[in-house]
Amino acid sequence: MPAAHHVITDVARQIWHDDFELSGATLPLNGSTNWAVRQRRLRGGLSDGVDVVEIDNGALKLEVLPTRGMGVWRGNFQGIPIGWDSPVKMPVHPAFVNQTERGGLGWLAGFNELICRCGLSFMGPPGCDDDFEDHPILGELTLHGKIANLPAHRVEATVDSDQPGSIAVTGVVDECSMFGPCLRLTSTIETTVGSNRFTISDEVSNLSAKHAEFEMLYHTNIGRPFLEAGSRFLAAAREVSPRDARAAEGVDTYDKYVAPDAGYAEQAYYFRLIGDAQQRGLAVLRNAAGDLALSLRMPLAELPCFTLWKNTAAEADGYVTGLEPGTNFPNLRSFERAHGRVLTLAPGASRQMSFELAIHPDKTSVQQVAEEVQSLQRATTVAMSWEPLREYSPAGK
Amino acid sequence: MPAAHHVITDVARQIWHDDFELSGATLPLNGSTNWAVRQRRLRGGLSDGVDVVEIDNGALKLEVLPTRGMGVWRGNFQGIPIGWDSPVKMPVHPAFVNQTERGGLGWLAGFNELICRCGLSFMGPPGCDDDFEDHPILGELTLHGKIANLPAHRVEATVDSDQPGSIAVTGVVDECSMFGPCLRLTSTIETTVGSNRFTISDEVSNLSAKHAEFEMLYHTNIGRPFLEAGSRFLAAAREVSPRDARAAEGVDTYDKYVAPDAGYAEQAYYFRLIGDAQQRGLAVLRNAAGDLALSLRMPLAELPCFTLWKNTAAEADGYVTGLEPGTNFPNLRSFERAHGRVLTLAPGASRQMSFELAIHPDKTSVQQVAEEVQSLQRATTVAMSWEPLREYSPAGK
Amino acid sequence: MPAAHHVITDVARQIWHDDFELSGATLPLNGSTNWAVRQRRLRGGLSDGVDVVEIDNGALKLEVLPTRGMGVWRGNFQGIPIGWDSPVKMPVHPAFVNQTERGGLGWLAGFNELICRCGLSFMGPPGCDDDFEDHPILGELTLHGKIANLPAHRVEATVDSDQPGSIAVTGVVDECSMFGPCLRLTSTIETTVGSNRFTISDEVSNLSAKHAEFEMLYHTNIGRPFLEAGSRFLAAAREVSPRDARAAEGVDTYDKYVAPDAGYAEQAYYFRLIGDAQQRGLAVLRNAAGDLALSLRMPLAELPCFTLWKNTAAEADGYVTGLEPGTNFPNLRSFERAHGRVLTLAPGASRQMSFELAIHPDKTSVQQVAEEVQSLQRATTVAMSWEPLREYSPAGK
Repeated sequence: MPAAHHVITDVARQIWHDDFELSGATLPLNGSTNWAVRQRRLRGGLSDGVDVVEIDNGALKLEVLPTRGMGVWRGNFQGIPIGWDSPVKMPVHPAFVNQTERGGLGWLAGFNELICRCGLSFMGPPGCDDDFEDHPILGELTLHGKIANLPAHRVEATVDSDQPGSIAVTGVVDECSMFGPCLRLTSTIETTVGSNRFTISDEVSNLSAKHAEFEMLYHTNIGRPFLEAGSRFLAAAREVSPRDARAAEGVDTYDKYVAPDAGYAEQAYYFRLIGDAQQRGLAVLRNAAGDLALSLRMPLAELPCFTLWKNTAAEADGYVTGLEPGTNFPNLRSFERAHGRVLTLAPGASRQMSFELAIHPDKTSVQQVAEEVQSLQRATTVAMSWEPLREYSPAGK
Repeated sequence: MPAAHHVITDVARQIWHDDFELSGATLPLNGSTNWAVRQRRLRGGLSDGVDVVEIDNGALKLEVLPTRGMGVWRGNFQGIPIGWDSPVKMPVHPAFVNQTERGGLGWLAGFNELICRCGLSFMGPPGCDDDFEDHPILGELTLHGKIANLPAHRVEATVDSDQPGSIAVTGVVDECSMFGPCLRLTSTIETTVGSNRFTISDEVSNLSAKHAEFEMLYHTNIGRPFLEAGSRFLAAAREVSPRDARAAEGVDTYDKYVAPDAGYAEQAYYFRLIGDAQQRGLAVLRNAAGDLALSLRMPLAELPCFTLWKNTAAEADGYVTGLEPGTNFPNLRSFERAHGRVLTLAPGASRQMSFELAIHPDKTSVQQVAEEVQSLQRATTVAMSWEPLREYSPAGK
Repeated sequence: MPAAHHVITDVARQIWHDDFELSGATLPLNGSTNWAVRQRRLRGGLSDGVDVVEIDNGALKLEVLPTRGMGVWRGNFQGIPIGWDSPVKMPVHPAFVNQTERGGLGWLAGFNELICRCGLSFMGPPGCDDDFEDHPILGELTLHGKIANLPAHRVEATVDSDQPGSIAVTGVVDECSMFGPCLRLTSTIETTVGSNRFTISDEVSNLSAKHAEFEMLYHTNIGRPFLEAGSRFLAAAREVSPRDARAAEGVDTYDKYVAPDAGYAEQAYYFRLIGDAQQRGLAVLRNAAGDLALSLRMPLAELPCFTLWKNTAAEADGYVTGLEPGTNFPNLRSFERAHGRVLTLAPGASRQMSFELAIHPDKTSVQQVAEEVQSLQRATTVAMSWEPLREYSPAGK
């Protein structure tokens, strides 16, 4: 049997299931019966009405949130939790997130995912984008844009029983308004039975007959057990620079992590990564013992800007680091536009972005990925900046 | 059997149906079994939780949205769609509409109905109404007011089996706050079996013991097949004036429509219509071939101000025109107040407004309604203004 | 049988019931079968999705709103309604309350409870708290804070069959954001079978590893039949002062109520109450005939600031008075901080607050509680201020 599609939700055709399950019990994939795709709806509290699609490949479990822009709430690989412990405990329905409150920082009240998209029309800090001539009315930007608080109107599962036995969930989310940008995200999260990795493949399309700007950042957030005192960030980089004065304080330890510290103020670093033979960048978070790591690989043509967010605050306040591939850096859109990093989509045009997240669960696999980083770096000396750069940061001088 | 009431929703008595159906299968109306009133709840995406009441008279089908202030999502007459294709594809639950965002333009993220009410306490562009002395705290106005994003707390169907066999759905929506205006909309949409028309009869009541201002605009939006290159707007008018400089550019073709044009910027014209023997105004949108038209008739004592909105943008961005009867023109409330057009309701007082929408599906019926317009215009020369008028528009000099 | 717990909702464990009932039919309490705890979910209108937990002790019925921060919608004692008739008729789901609208007064669109909490991070009027150095981004305050529009993520019922037969409902509500305060309210409302009273026992905990400020006001709102022309407010007070010039106009009749008056503008008075032997304050609203009263008793160490809100407006606009024990007075947080009344919780620290509400349904019981007030006042002359005091009110000179 080749790939088969199963519609989980389709608002236009009014397909929606209170509970959905597709599993190896009835459909073996590449010989394995140990897999499933399930949807359930959360009830009560701030989660009331949030749909969760669980993808279980037998070794790796992922919980995707169609109600929150196809974000990935959390994962689990053979008992190892993948994600972080946000002070916001459960998925928050967008009806409870007022993005305009607190001077445009309302987004933070719903922030707890392993992978949370920032975009599509804008991302970065709240502020006024006065240069947005085409749509002056759209210049009031709130933190990290709208996509994480918009629900998918179409969700489907696709499985392929042939080798290697793939499981994919695709969601379609529109960020659209009359007299506003109309961007469509078509996101596919895919894994194979028994695998230690998954891929996110996104397409953003401009549904409008006018040109549209667009920005995307994959806010990939990781806590324990990957993050701990002594954890290291590994990436082969051409350039590294601090976002601001606070990050500049920590340049010489930008790749090292400390234990939770209630007084820690966040630090962010901007990277230009070095590509491998396929021009893919590689970023790794390794634990202290060097026997557990998580890696991201992303085509640099698609996601050329990488941001490292260090927030080793107290456990209670979110002990977390972000490995964030993006189309640009998370500065105010007007700054990114001035530096030529905001993408433009012609009417009807689309753009693909993808990255792979893999778990390296033992010393051997960690060493392997660490050596790969070293090998990529070999030919190039990293240009470390001790101050924010004008090219990358509004704090640059 | 005389008229019978069927409660679909009553929050106070906690009556609510997952699915509701009343139809000719059990209750013939004026001999016809080919009719129905049905309610369903949309699930998933931005539509999650939106109730849709379908009224089918056998020839004309209407989908009413109690969750969105009793707006009419769309209609269909013998296979002809009535409505438009907004970039916002499906009905949007108010929980996903933040009216304060984008400088008060958030309303646009939910705008896609055939008939969308603007009001009740205010309508028109966002802005600050500093003259609103009674309730200074209520002076921050957002685009087109709140009524389209407020759900009905009571909905009932009323059918009458006697000649001519009428089907009506009534919804009650409160726009109310402590220390704020408390206006109640009681809206009835009514048609008869097999008919090509329906009537909207609204009552707005002031529930407060204080005087209340109120404004109402019926944003009636029509696209294909009524709207196309060569379509014409027909109305017998005493006065026509452009809203602003942009509209002034098109005064000599204000009644003609062009093909979709991605660069088209909206134009609006303000009308004082001529009444017929019953003092009803008549506005018609006719297709290019002259074999399909849609008309609105409204008592001018109830809805004296008519706005024509032309937005022949690209299909993807909403190719649409608005025929918009109102109690006043859609300017900032302070401007309308200064020109004496904002209505005031005494404590407990009410005001009725109604209009009829009819489909003219062939050459004969189109010619008939076009001749009626001509005949109404015969005795009066229209005063065409080439510039915005100070009386009607803030852009007037 | 000792106390037994019954989980009604637990989002983390995904326990949620469409309908929940626990009652004397199967479980007598202290011999009584005439009691129940029930949960139902409201559907339709602005109430769609609001959970209501009814506590019925056989004589007193309370309707608690987990969806609205464990507020108490209304009560009923042997046929006597406890609460008020707000222009906002039914419980409003937080998705329909945009607190930032109308200059931060959006909270008022959902205000209709008997007991509505104001807090936790801030309460009082909307405004900018520039002194909030720790979290400058959190300085944009909206009216009365967020807690009343946040749903409980855990709700449970606890009953004890032993003497006196207690019934309690506990709800847990988090007011939390990444990079924001994270305060947890654990609220228990408790009564005993056949009783004329109930207690609210709240704990507010600081979940963060940083210090957190916190404020709490119990906006307890009462209308007919307790409130009417000739009703009296009774409290033994050390100090009474008007909030502002408007309240100053009514100082000599601050404890007397008039009939509904459409032109009445609200008046508020600030009190320092006198404690009884257990240092509990006592505040009473008595009807005109003196045969019905409602009293509040609160430990002054927990709730030292008492506000009396008089809003004897027209019935249609909310004829109501508020008896409001608080940790501080409902002024802008920066003012309260400057006067040392904003509480601070160390990381992980908690604070308890409680009060009892009792109904006095006849002349004897009313006389008894009135005499208790008199007796408390006996030793102390109240310091009545004719003008707002600088210590308590920004209007003070």
